Amino acid sequence: MKFSPLVQELIDTLKCLPGVGAKSAQRMAFHLLERNRAGGEKLANALGKAMIHIGHCQQCRNFTEDELCQICQSPKRKISETMCIVENPADVIAIEQTGEFQGRYFILMGHLSPLDGIGPDDLGLDVLSKQLETGQFREVILATNPTVEGEATAHYIAELASKYQLTISRIAHGVPVGGELEYVDGNTLSHAFSGRKSYQY
Amino acid sequence: MKFSPLVQELIDTLKCLPGVGAKSAQRMAFHLLERNRAGGEKLANALGKAMIHIGHCQQCRNFTEDELCQICQSPKRKISETMCIVENPADVIAIEQTGEFQGRYFILMGHLSPLDGIGPDDLGLDVLSKQLETGQFREVILATNPTVEGEATAHYIAELASKYQLTISRIAHGVPVGGELEYVDGNTLSHAFSGRKSYQY
Repeated sequence: MKFSPLVQELIDTLKCLPGVGAKSAQRMAFHLLERNRAGGEKLANALGKAMIHIGHCQQCRNFTEDELCQICQSPKRKISETMCIVENPADVIAIEQTGEFQGRYFILMGHLSPLDGIGPDDLGLDVLSKQLETGQFREVILATNPTVEGEATAHYIAELASKYQLTISRIAHGVPVGGELEYVDGNTLSHAFSGRKSYQY
Repeated sequence: MKFSPLVQELIDTLKCLPGVGAKSAQRMAFHLLERNRAGGEKLANALGKAMIHIGHCQQCRNFTEDELCQICQSPKRKISETMCIVENPADVIAIEQTGEFQGRYFILMGHLSPLDGIGPDDLGLDVLSKQLETGQFREVILATNPTVEGEATAHYIAELASKYQLTISRIAHGVPVGGELEYVDGNTLSHAFSGRKSYQY
C-alpha cells in the first residue's frame, strides 16, 4: 500500500533536495499538508519562479534574475581595480559579511575536477580572460577553498592571469582566529609558520 | 549585501520546511539552481498541486485528493469489522507494511493536547462516533503512540467507544523484537512482565 498518488508524488519530488531521504521527505510533506499549506504554496511559487527566471550574472556568474547582479551593478564596484575569484555564491556572502573587500567578484561555480569532467570552460574561465584583457584590473585575489581541488584551481587561474600585467594574490593560510594551537592540524600550522609576518606594534 | 531578490525569496521560503534552517535552505537553493533545475520545477509543480488538491478522506481522515482514500475504497476493507485508530498517516504506512491488519483505519491527525488547544473535535472524534454508531464494527484497535499523550488519547477514545457494543483493544506494550533486555527501559520491561502470555509450543 502506498500513499495516494498526489501525496506520493510530493514525497518523491521532495527527495530531490540535498540531504533529504525517504523519511525526511515524508515528514516534510505531512508537515506542509497538516500545518503550513500557505507556506507550501509560497514555496511552490518561489521555486517555480526561481527555476525559470534565475540565471547567471553575465559579468561575475553569480545567480541573479537580471542581466547583471547587484554587486556588478553597483557604481563603486564597476570601476574597482580588484577582482576576487571564489568557488561558490555562498563564498561571496561570507566575504561580503566581513566588509573587508569592496571590489568585484568572479564566481567559478565549482572547481577544476577532471575526474568529474569539470574543465576550465565549465568554470567560465573564458569569460574571466576577457574581463582581465580589458586592463581594468590591477589585482586578482584567488579566494578558492583551501582544499586540494581549490588549490589546483587557484594555480591554474594564476597561470592564466599571469599573461596580463597584474598582481596575483592568494588569501592567507594560517591558524584560524580564536582557535587553540594545540588542535590545529600540522599542515595548517606549517603554513602559518612559513607565512609568518613581521610583528606590527 | 544579500542575494538577488528571487534567490533570497527561494531561500526564505525553503525555511518553512521542518528541520531546514538558513544554511540548509541556502544549500538546497544552490543545489537546485546549479544541478537540478528539472527537479526543482517538478517539485514546484507537485507542491502547488498538492497544497491545493489534497484534502482528507471523508471516512478515515487520511490525506487524499479523492473523496475516499485508497484503503477506504477497497471492496474488502469496506465490509471489514475491525477499525484501527492511529495518530498519523505515517503510522498507517508502517502498519500496512507488516501486512498484519486488513481492516479499516481512522487517523486522528494528532493526539489530545489541551495545552496546545487540541481537543476531541480537532481529532475528528465526532466523525469516529458516527462510524461506530452504524454498528459495522466489532472491534476497535487503539494504536496511538505509546507516549503519555498517546495513552491519554487511547483512554479517551476507549471511553467514547464503550457506549457501543464492541471489543476495544490496545496494541501490546513490551520489549521490541531483536533488542537486548539489558538496554530496555524499566517502564517497558514492567509492561512486558505484566502483559506476559502463556508460552506457545
